[in-house]
Amino acid sequence: MAYTVRDIASALDAEAFGQTDIVVERVSEPAMAGPDDLALLTNPKFVEGLAKGRARVALLWPGADWQALGLEAAIVAPRGRFAMGALTAMMDAGQDFPAGIHPSAVIDPTAIIGAEVTVCPFAVIGPRARIGAKSVIGPHCHIGADAVIGPDAYLRDHVSVGARVTIGARFRAQPGARIGADGMSFVTPEESGVEKVRETLGDQGEVKSQSWARIHSLGAVTIGDDVEIGANTCIDYGTVRDTRIGNGTKIDNLVHIAHNVVVGNDCLFAGQVGIAGSTTVGNNVVLGGQVGITDNTRIGDNVIAGGASKIMTKVPTGQVVLGYPAVKMDTHLDMYKGLRRLPRLAKQVAALQKAVSKSGSND
Amino acid sequence: MAYTVRDIASALDAEAFGQTDIVVERVSEPAMAGPDDLALLTNPKFVEGLAKGRARVALLWPGADWQALGLEAAIVAPRGRFAMGALTAMMDAGQDFPAGIHPSAVIDPTAIIGAEVTVCPFAVIGPRARIGAKSVIGPHCHIGADAVIGPDAYLRDHVSVGARVTIGARFRAQPGARIGADGMSFVTPEESGVEKVRETLGDQGEVKSQSWARIHSLGAVTIGDDVEIGANTCIDYGTVRDTRIGNGTKIDNLVHIAHNVVVGNDCLFAGQVGIAGSTTVGNNVVLGGQVGITDNTRIGDNVIAGGASKIMTKVPTGQVVLGYPAVKMDTHLDMYKGLRRLPRLAKQVAALQKAVSKSGSND
Amino acid sequence: MAYTVRDIASALDAEAFGQTDIVVERVSEPAMAGPDDLALLTNPKFVEGLAKGRARVALLWPGADWQALGLEAAIVAPRGRFAMGALTAMMDAGQDFPAGIHPSAVIDPTAIIGAEVTVCPFAVIGPRARIGAKSVIGPHCHIGADAVIGPDAYLRDHVSVGARVTIGARFRAQPGARIGADGMSFVTPEESGVEKVRETLGDQGEVKSQSWARIHSLGAVTIGDDVEIGANTCIDYGTVRDTRIGNGTKIDNLVHIAHNVVVGNDCLFAGQVGIAGSTTVGNNVVLGGQVGITDNTRIGDNVIAGGASKIMTKVPTGQVVLGYPAVKMDTHLDMYKGLRRLPRLAKQVAALQKAVSKSGSND
Repeated sequence: MAYTVRDIASALDAEAFGQTDIVVERVSEPAMAGPDDLALLTNPKFVEGLAKGRARVALLWPGADWQALGLEAAIVAPRGRFAMGALTAMMDAGQDFPAGIHPSAVIDPTAIIGAEVTVCPFAVIGPRARIGAKSVIGPHCHIGADAVIGPDAYLRDHVSVGARVTIGARFRAQPGARIGADGMSFVTPEESGVEKVRETLGDQGEVKSQSWARIHSLGAVTIGDDVEIGANTCIDYGTVRDTRIGNGTKIDNLVHIAHNVVVGNDCLFAGQVGIAGSTTVGNNVVLGGQVGITDNTRIGDNVIAGGASKIMTKVPTGQVVLGYPAVKMDTHLDMYKGLRRLPRLAKQVAALQKAVSKSGSND
Repeated sequence: MAYTVRDIASALDAEAFGQTDIVVERVSEPAMAGPDDLALLTNPKFVEGLAKGRARVALLWPGADWQALGLEAAIVAPRGRFAMGALTAMMDAGQDFPAGIHPSAVIDPTAIIGAEVTVCPFAVIGPRARIGAKSVIGPHCHIGADAVIGPDAYLRDHVSVGARVTIGARFRAQPGARIGADGMSFVTPEESGVEKVRETLGDQGEVKSQSWARIHSLGAVTIGDDVEIGANTCIDYGTVRDTRIGNGTKIDNLVHIAHNVVVGNDCLFAGQVGIAGSTTVGNNVVLGGQVGITDNTRIGDNVIAGGASKIMTKVPTGQVVLGYPAVKMDTHLDMYKGLRRLPRLAKQVAALQKAVSKSGSND
Repeated sequence: MAYTVRDIASALDAEAFGQTDIVVERVSEPAMAGPDDLALLTNPKFVEGLAKGRARVALLWPGADWQALGLEAAIVAPRGRFAMGALTAMMDAGQDFPAGIHPSAVIDPTAIIGAEVTVCPFAVIGPRARIGAKSVIGPHCHIGADAVIGPDAYLRDHVSVGARVTIGARFRAQPGARIGADGMSFVTPEESGVEKVRETLGDQGEVKSQSWARIHSLGAVTIGDDVEIGANTCIDYGTVRDTRIGNGTKIDNLVHIAHNVVVGNDCLFAGQVGIAGSTTVGNNVVLGGQVGITDNTRIGDNVIAGGASKIMTKVPTGQVVLGYPAVKMDTHLDMYKGLRRLPRLAKQVAALQKAVSKSGSND
């Protein structure tokens, strides 16, 4: 992963200064950079670190004076954080999986494997599955019957893709991602306590113990292009129609997406988010870590939910929410301020009671 | 998966009307149904969808007029949602795993494999393990030493069953389920800050940094009949006695059941529930998504906990709870209403203070 | 796993009494103990159980009169809970994985495997990986390229160790642990709504829908000595520097540790904890189940966070916190008491308003 400063700047659509033929081998924080490293210094507040390290080259913020910083060369990008995308893509050493089809892989003869596909040790590819060109199927992956994966996919190890799942181009899955687990859908012979609680907001009526009958998942999962799914994240089959994830959506680790959920395009879900059954999420929705969304509700486009928000009702387009239950962020902050002052408020009320009762006794 | 209307109605204990020899091949939502599909229309509020699709046959709510709906045949079930159980079981195409023992599987010679068992590629079955008749052990499953799995189990791929785990009949496990991870039990040489906080409700006393000694898990996990465990869900071994899951209990994805927990029969736990060590949960308990239960407590039968409830104390039989900390749902709603009005209440108190101080100064 | 009472007492640094040559084969709760079991009775409040079982030998609390309890032998440890560490280590039957290198394992010829290492069926060990002496690599584990695992590791089944991960001595990983998933780091071409919300505390400004560009993970994960990682727990790569876990830290199931997080020594994280990107956690920190910590913050040494706390800001050394947002535990309890009394407080204010307005109208 060695490149000249010139080549990196060109790949980043950025400007290069100084000795642009210096070759850098890795990217480092300024204080830890060696002489062959590109120091990352896109924010002037970390400038002191540079003197602690031995970098000769840095990626700098716009307007930085690279010569005054004692550098031999520099790259300047207008939005340094965005430049990290192209820069880290160049420098990523990847998993170094062995190319080609490993002889230990078990591939059903009816599966269709595209050109230049890598299939790693102990991968299993089921009947009639189709793998797009240049895709990488990591070690211990299981691709179920009739599943379709588009071109340029990169599946790390231990990924499950269930039967009949359909996935677009450039899919990325981290270790242990589960696409197409059966939906959790059970029903009682008679109306259950939960159904009654939903009607009455808290009263389950006459308590009746019943057993659960399984509703099988007949739907599958459909995933768009450019989607990434985190480690050990689970996306369930739909009951009748497919569970759906739109194009460009990125999902972190340990997320739970239940049956029939529909997620739009370009969403970002942080770790441990959970979305209950049959909920619809719009486009460009950002959910912080540990956010939960109830079932059968609707989240509008461009909604942002702060970390650990528990969304119990629908949220209109563009709203920023926080809390349990989640409300508009400014409403939440007002409520919370009131809560912090509540012990004092209670004392004020007690004092008032005393004052008024005294004044009353004076009548 | 093609059946006549007559056969389906018979399997569902439902009534069939019209041309009951029409063959349907799949189940669809009314608006998306093709001519060979059974449209699901168990709720009259979705009746408009029927005109958008091409269904000739539908599963209808009791009292529906199938002829007025323009159908050629119909099935009417008294509780349509319950009929979904039998209907989806019939129509489920499953994972299409290859039948029989795959030659790549590694089965210890001392393991006992029942009749008509399927063992998929790269499954490992350890010493003295026993697999009941007609069970399916999916690809990449690991069944540990001395583990026992009853008849008619269906394990998807990548399932772990640890040594000495005992599981009843008709078990179902989704991809990546972990039965029998070691319990998380550590102890410090002297009383730890956590032990002191529990005694004092917040004061850890003199802070002393100590290292943790591991308590190994000598207990295993015992699971009853008709249990289902979701994708990437983890159930830990007990410390001395077994962790236990009762008959008919259904557990969703990414759930954490810690060491020594005892769960009763016919419970339903939604995604990302967590139950801490040594807690006992009764029968027919329903926990919404992301519910947490503290350690060493007791949840009565028929308790229902709303989504994201954090249960910090014991809950009596039949109670419906919500919130963090979880309290009775109506108490929670009262508290929450008060919280929403708190900014207004603070203003009212300020106005009162002004009025009273003014009236006081008039004295 | 059969030992004499004398040998056990010696291993536990405890005193033995009575017929110390009795051999015990397992450890039991008093009420369930058979004649060859060691009953665990380190707390006098469970003494009644002894009569229900058939134990001849027990592990007793200091000062217990073993003869009066009708026992033939006894072991007395000063802190019985701590003695459980050594006792359960002796009695643990383990997973009984077959010793040696299983012929089905795929080990890259450039990998370096230490002396007396066990590699189980279907394990994959990548190029240039190094496995320390006496380590056990369980079935279906994947050890990536250039990964280093120290001596005496014990990896259960289905564990992922990504390329370039470095792990110290005596590492333990439960089934499905993922060390070295790619960090979840995405950036938009222009400032995103989330970046604006962080500046404004709630206002995302003009809503602009953008797609996400991926920042690849160039950092790896570095883990110290004596660390344990729970089932299906995920630890992400760092972006530039490594994500780090200190010596002696123990992490439970389904925990999410994001990119760049630094965790100190001797921490204890319970199930389903989540720590967002670039946060630093000190030494001896204890986090209850389902605790969440926001990104880019700092948690001091010896902090204790109660179950389901959501930590939104930095926490000073030694503090005990609870709630969402997490605050000092006594502050939380005060606020919560106020919240419980809020409906009554509102009534008091209404009564005051009536009294004051009446007294006002008397003016």
